[in-house]
Order: sequence, then structure tokens, then C-alpha cells
Amino acid sequence: MVTVSDDEPRIAAWDRRVDWWLTGLAVVFLAAYAWEVLDTSLGADDRAALEVVITVTWVVFGIDYLVRLALARQRLRYVRRHLLELAVLLLPMFRPLRALRVFTAIGVLNRQLRDDARGRVAIYVAGTVALISFVASLAVLDAERAAPDATLTTFGEAIWWTITTLSTVGYGDRYPVTTEGRFVAAALMVAGIALLGVVTASIASWFVENLRQAGQQVEKAVEVEADRTDAQLSEVLDELRRVSARLDALERDRRPS
Amino acid sequence: MVTVSDDEPRIAAWDRRVDWWLTGLAVVFLAAYAWEVLDTSLGADDRAALEVVITVTWVVFGIDYLVRLALARQRLRYVRRHLLELAVLLLPMFRPLRALRVFTAIGVLNRQLRDDARGRVAIYVAGTVALISFVASLAVLDAERAAPDATLTTFGEAIWWTITTLSTVGYGDRYPVTTEGRFVAAALMVAGIALLGVVTASIASWFVENLRQAGQQVEKAVEVEADRTDAQLSEVLDELRRVSARLDALERDRRPS
Amino acid sequence: MVTVSDDEPRIAAWDRRVDWWLTGLAVVFLAAYAWEVLDTSLGADDRAALEVVITVTWVVFGIDYLVRLALARQRLRYVRRHLLELAVLLLPMFRPLRALRVFTAIGVLNRQLRDDARGRVAIYVAGTVALISFVASLAVLDAERAAPDATLTTFGEAIWWTITTLSTVGYGDRYPVTTEGRFVAAALMVAGIALLGVVTASIASWFVENLRQAGQQVEKAVEVEADRTDAQLSEVLDELRRVSARLDALERDRRPS
Amino acid sequence: MVTVSDDEPRIAAWDRRVDWWLTGLAVVFLAAYAWEVLDTSLGADDRAALEVVITVTWVVFGIDYLVRLALARQRLRYVRRHLLELAVLLLPMFRPLRALRVFTAIGVLNRQLRDDARGRVAIYVAGTVALISFVASLAVLDAERAAPDATLTTFGEAIWWTITTLSTVGYGDRYPVTTEGRFVAAALMVAGIALLGVVTASIASWFVENLRQAGQQVEKAVEVEADRTDAQLSEVLDELRRVSARLDALERDRRPS
Repeated sequence: MVTVSDDEPRIAAWDRRVDWWLTGLAVVFLAAYAWEVLDTSLGADDRAALEVVITVTWVVFGIDYLVRLALARQRLRYVRRHLLELAVLLLPMFRPLRALRVFTAIGVLNRQLRDDARGRVAIYVAGTVALISFVASLAVLDAERAAPDATLTTFGEAIWWTITTLSTVGYGDRYPVTTEGRFVAAALMVAGIALLGVVTASIASWFVENLRQAGQQVEKAVEVEADRTDAQLSEVLDELRRVSARLDALERDRRPS
Repeated sequence: MVTVSDDEPRIAAWDRRVDWWLTGLAVVFLAAYAWEVLDTSLGADDRAALEVVITVTWVVFGIDYLVRLALARQRLRYVRRHLLELAVLLLPMFRPLRALRVFTAIGVLNRQLRDDARGRVAIYVAGTVALISFVASLAVLDAERAAPDATLTTFGEAIWWTITTLSTVGYGDRYPVTTEGRFVAAALMVAGIALLGVVTASIASWFVENLRQAGQQVEKAVEVEADRTDAQLSEVLDELRRVSARLDALERDRRPS
Repeated sequence: MVTVSDDEPRIAAWDRRVDWWLTGLAVVFLAAYAWEVLDTSLGADDRAALEVVITVTWVVFGIDYLVRLALARQRLRYVRRHLLELAVLLLPMFRPLRALRVFTAIGVLNRQLRDDARGRVAIYVAGTVALISFVASLAVLDAERAAPDATLTTFGEAIWWTITTLSTVGYGDRYPVTTEGRFVAAALMVAGIALLGVVTASIASWFVENLRQAGQQVEKAVEVEADRTDAQLSEVLDELRRVSARLDALERDRRPS
Repeated sequence: MVTVSDDEPRIAAWDRRVDWWLTGLAVVFLAAYAWEVLDTSLGADDRAALEVVITVTWVVFGIDYLVRLALARQRLRYVRRHLLELAVLLLPMFRPLRALRVFTAIGVLNRQLRDDARGRVAIYVAGTVALISFVASLAVLDAERAAPDATLTTFGEAIWWTITTLSTVGYGDRYPVTTEGRFVAAALMVAGIALLGVVTASIASWFVENLRQAGQQVEKAVEVEADRTDAQLSEVLDELRRVSARLDALERDRRPS
């Protein structure tokens, strides 16, 4: 699994300080976004207030990225390794990609989830799938609802579409028709494939761990046996030296006689 | 493969005593459910009688869960590790999830199947796939049949839909339209992914077994060679001690002279 | 990969004698079936003649199965291990499964392909996929063509449907509507999953081979080093015995003096 | 990953000399093809000019294949190992396969990409997926646009179709209806499966590398311990010889007396 790079101690320290705040903010962000999408009876004022919350949170996430970049020792490498994070922050600026805003929360919540589920791949994967499904359903509903020939017009239908898409069944009874909705769909498919990659990588790293342990056990056995041989050889050498010393004594006795 | 936890001897003893009874009950449950769904000429009385059989069986499964929980040494851990079992028992209480009742039989039958097919993954997987397909076809037919725009109205069509869904082909010529039917579909997709997980885990555990054997063989070879060296060294030491003893004798001879 | 069981020498001998004849017969069978399906201008007489060829071939395949069963040492085990072969021979007797007849040729041709491609998984898989695709396209076209609401009415459309199904894309622009066609589709999906299983098992067995080789190399290294230690210890022991012999001589010299 | 065969030094030398030229040519080819497909306002003259560029590039790719074949030591083996390359060059000669022309550029660009991303599977796969998606979208749009019942008539729709096909979701809201378009779709599905094969093979080769390293570590440990035992045994032998020498001296002293 991808971890916070150990060779960036200042970023790790920053993470420890702000992680809980950012997690809380991401939950607020998701709640505001969900409210805006799901409550169709909202007045223009309430809608504007929620938009302010969403935009401010987004700006805070952007500042977090900049701070982390400033703290990085090798900035170019940091940018290269966090291209996805940068894309998720910048892409929603373009009009047809606005629905991707909600994916910014996934990055932050996923970081928290990873720390909580350290080593328990099943929980991590299940949590991430649930998170991505919820967020993608919201985003696709937001994008599609107003389209004239939309087939995704309620949250239930959006969730049903998300499940059929993530499992790659794809009946085709529901599908996005707007450019925004299709970007959400593409993001969902990429996320599904990436999740599969994380699971495969986890199984692979578990194998390598087993390999190393098997190798180390044999190495230890070799060392234990070698130490036993060593001890015996030392005894032999001691005995030999005693023999040699006695012969010396014999010789010395002989000379004077 | 998941096994009955070896550190819960009381649950294992309970399992040994009731397993055959529960398996029989699960078969009765399935038969009653299948009869109710497939025989459309049933009168209201027969239907009510079958409902009683189904409900009683369901209650017995609930009691089995409670007994196992009571016998568990670490109850919280038991609940956490059997979340799926709890969900399958409780979820059908909610109206749109009634069709999920039939999945409770899978848990019990699958336990029996696992004991019978111990170590033969192919038989276990084939049996589970057949079981899940049959149960999902029944459940989706039960849920969909009455819907106005249903495309799943006969058992043959339900089985065809189950096959296209489990293989993730998803033509979209048949698909559930009711909330109940969609929950069955989601359960079927999750079951398909879980089956894949079981197969992958089995192959993985078979690898680890091979790894351990390869490591143990090398360790054994190291020990055999070390024992041979030991025996030779002991011989050397014995010989040396004999030499030393002779030198002692020589010395003693010398002293008096 | 599955191989002819080495513990059945009589079946292996029978295979060596009839394999080429059966392969030729399977090609004739496929050609006759393809001609019957693709040439719509055939008269009733020609059609009857082709049916005779197909039926005779089918009977010969059945006789081959019975001979192999008679030659088997453990008959029950043979039946259990060749359930698929038995199913492919018997199922087409039932009317809605007639289109499955053509799959009998796959078993025979696949055996030949496996012997030719021994160890080259890519060629074996590519050949089997091509064979299954061709056969499934013929069978589904045969089954669907006459149906009133059929979407698979030409060989080109049947091949297109086979490709979208095998890759599990399943657009749903073409799909079988008859029971026969759906059995062909189910067989195709199972074949696709089985192929994946063969590939996975091949990669797995290749890993185990590597594991054994790595273990054997270490074992050999242990043995080489142990032999060197042995040789040195023998030298030590020889030297010691020479010393002991000299001491004996010294002692003997001493006694008489 | 497949690499330029090390046992063909003359082809490798040719590759080093022309790779950049061919890469540039492939980019020109792709640009000309994309321009022709995407700019619907092109006049007949411009269209003819672009066709000339495309045809000349195609001929150059053919000459490159012939030169490599002439430089190969084992020509038959070269043809057999580069069947796909030959197919991609020759198939577009047939009218319904004209849309496959654009795939010739992939072979050349992919070679460059592989050299740039040596060892970084993620970058290689991402680059290849992006390349194949772009090329397939162009080719399917080129093939489908003019068909009377086409559902793929804009580049956006073509890209959307490519994404749903590559991820095997296959909603069926868009699908090719022409023979040319279906060949592009089949090529896309095969490419998707081939990519999966490359990723699996990469993970597998990484495992084998780990296996070898673990084995070599143990072998090294065995050697280190054996060298230590050797050194001690040499010391024992030296000591023994010194003892033996002294006994010789004692004996010589004795003789004259």
C-alpha cells in the first residue's frame, strides 16, 4: 500500500498535526455537497450558503497541498508522485468537470481510513469502495439530473448505476449522457481498476513478506548449526593445544636429561 | 478459506452437534421458498402455510446465531467477524429487503459444503456458485414478477439474468427494476466478487504452503549435513582425548624414571 | 495444465493410437456442422446427409469415451474426473441442448492442441479461444436464426456477439433469446472463466517450479559446503590417527626399555 | 515485458539508428490521421494530401519491417515472433479493415515508450492505455460516422465508447454497427486483455526476481559460515601438523639414544 513517504519527515509532522482537522473538514464538505444535491427543495439562499462552504473547503484543501509542497525536500518529485491529487484539485475549475469537486474529499478521508485500517486490507478496501460509491452517486446525480434525456434522476437510481458500473456488469438500463456525468463515470471506472491494483499489490507484498521470512528462517538454521560446529571446533582446538603443551613439556624434560 | 475458529472449542462442539439438523432445515427452507415462488397456482392457505415454515426456519437460524454468540469466549470479536451473518439475518426485516431472506440458507448450506469439500477448492466453488445462482434467481423472480415494467417474469429468465450478471457480461436485455430486485442484484455482484476473493486466497495459501515446504526441506538438509559434521567432530574429539590420555601415560611413566 | 493421467498407462497407449484419427474426425464433424449452419441454400437431402455424418461422428466420440472408461484402472475416479466430457456427450440428447453437440469436437481438438503446444501457454490459449469462438458462433447462429425476435441472424453478427460476450463487455445490442442459444451463451461464459483458470494455474505451476529450483540450489550449496568440510575433517582424522600411531610406537619403544 | 531480442545484435543496432526517426514519423502519421478524421470541413484536396502522408508513412513502416526481417539471423523465427506486427501492416489492405491502419503507429510509439519507461510498469501501462484509447477512438469514429444507424458520430462519443469498452462495462448505449468499427472494437478488447497480460507478467517476473534474491542470500549465508568453519579447520590441521612434527622430533631424539 502507498504510505506517507518516510523520507519526508516534515510532511509527516504536518500530517500528524492537521489530519483530524482535514478529516472533519472533508466530512463537512461531503455533508454540504450531499445536502445540496439531495435536497431539491432548497431555496437560492441556502444553496448559495452551501456553495460557500464547499468553495472554502476546497480552498483549504488547496492550501494543504501548497503547504505540503513547500515542506517537501524534493519538490519536483513530490509533484510527480502526487499528480492525481493535483489533478483532483485543479480539474474541477473547468466547467464540464465541476462534478469532480467531490472527489477531493476522498483523498483526505482515504488517508484517515488508511491510518485506521493499517494492515487490514479488507476493511480498507470495503471502506474505500463505500466512500467512492457514495461520492460517485452524488456527483453523477448532480451532473445528470437536469439533462433532457437523463436516465439518472434519483439518488436510488444513481446508486444502482454506480453498483452496476463498479462491478463492470453495465446493463445499460441507466447511463450518463452529459459530459460531466461521463467524466464521473470514467473516474469511477479508473477508481475500480485502481482498487483492484491496490488489492493485488497488497497480496503481492504479503507474499514477499512470506518469502523473506522463509529465507530468514533457513539463514537462522544455517547460523545455529554453524555456531554448534564452531563450539565443537573450539573444543577440538583447545584439546589440541593442551596436547601440544604436553609435548612441549615432554621435550623440555628430554633436553636437559 | 475461512474456517470455524479453532480457538472457540465450545462453538465447534455446538457446530458438530447441530450442523446436520441445520443443513436439513436449510434444505426445507429453500424447498418451501422455491415452492412459494415457482408454483403460481398456490392458494392463499398453502401460501400462508409455506410462509409459516419459512418464518419458523428463519427464527431457528436466529436462535443458532444467539447460541453461538453466547458460547463465544470473545463476544465482541465474534460479532465483528460474523457481520455478514448478522446482516443476512437482520436485513430481511426491512420491507424492501424481504427477498434477501433466502440468502440465510446459503450461510448454513455453505458451512456443510465447506466441510464436505475440505481442500477441494474446485468442488467448493462450483457448489457455492450453483447454490447462489439458484437462490438469487428465486429471490429476484419473487421481487420482480409483480412490477409493472418487469423484464424478469419467469424462472428461466431469472436464471439467464443471474448467469449474465455473475459473469459480469450484463447484456441489459433483462434487469431488475424494483428496489428489492436491485438489492438481490447487488448481493449477487458482491457474492461474485467474494467468490473470486476465496479462490485467490486459496491459491495464495497453497503458494505459502509450498514456500514453507521448500524452506523446511532446505532446513532439513542443513540439519542432516550439520549432524554428519557433528558425528565426525565427536570422533575427532574422542581420538584427541585418547591421544591426550596416552601422553598423560607417557608423562606418568617419565616422572618416576 | 491438465494432462493425461500418468497413472493410467493403458489409456495413454489408447490415446497414442487413436488421437490422429479422432482429430481428423473432429475436423470432419466441425466442417459438416459449419456447412449445415452456414449454407442456407442446402436441400433437404444434403442436410440429411450432413446430419448422418454428424451423428456418426458423435457416436464414435461416445465409443471412444466408453473404451477409455473400460481401460481405466479406477473407473469411478475416471468418471468423476471427466464429468465435463460426459456432460458434453450426453446433454445434446435433450432437445433444447442440441446446439451443444458441436462442443464435443472441442474436447478432441483441444487434446491435440495441448500436445502440440506443450509448455507454450500463449499458443494453447490463443488456439483454444479461436476454436471456442468459432464453435460458439456456429452453435448460437444455429439455435437463434429461426426465432421470431432473434438479433443473431448472420454469421458475422454471431462472431461479433461471441467477441463481446467472451470479453465480458456485453453491449446488449445482440443477445440470444431462445433456450438453446442461452445454453450456448452459458457454455461460452463458463469456457471463458475456465480458460482464465487454466492461465492462472499455468502461471502458478511455473512459480512452484521456480520455488523448487531455488530450494534445490540452496540445498546443493549446503551439500557442496558440507562435502568440503567432510573432506577436511577426514584429513584431520587421518592426521590424528597418524599421531596416535606414533604415540603407540613411542609407548611400545618405552615399555621394553 | 517483451524486449528487443538480445540475440539479434544487428536488429538492435538498426533500432538504435532509426528509432527516433520512426517515432517522429508515427507522430506525423497520427497527427495526419487525427486531422483527417476530426476536421470535417476539409476540402477534397487537403484530404488527398493527408492520405498521401498517411500512405507514405505506412510504406516506410513496411520497409522498416522488411529491413528488420533481412537483418534477422533466424528469419522464420522473427516472422513467428512478430506475427502481430505483420498482421497490423497487412490487414488494412483489405477494405473492411482500413480503420486498423492507425494501429501501425502504436507498435512504433509503444517501442519508444517502453525504452523511456524501462522498469516503471505503471507509466508504461498508463501511456499505452492512453495511446490505444486515442487511436481506437479515432479509428472507430472514422469507420462508423457515415453508417446510417451509427451511434458513434462525434469524437466525444467515440472516447466515451472506448472507455466503457476497455473497462468491460459495456453499457450498450453506444456500439459499432459497421464491420470496420467492429474490427476496431475487437482489436480494442484484445489490446485490453493483452495489457492485463503484460501487467500480470511484470508482477510475476518481479516475484521470480525476489525468489532468486532470497535464495542467493541463503546461499551466501551458507558460504560465509562454511568459510568460517574452513578457517577453523585449517587452524586445527596446522596445530595437528605441528604436534606431528614434534612427535617426529621426539622419535628422532629417541632413535639415536
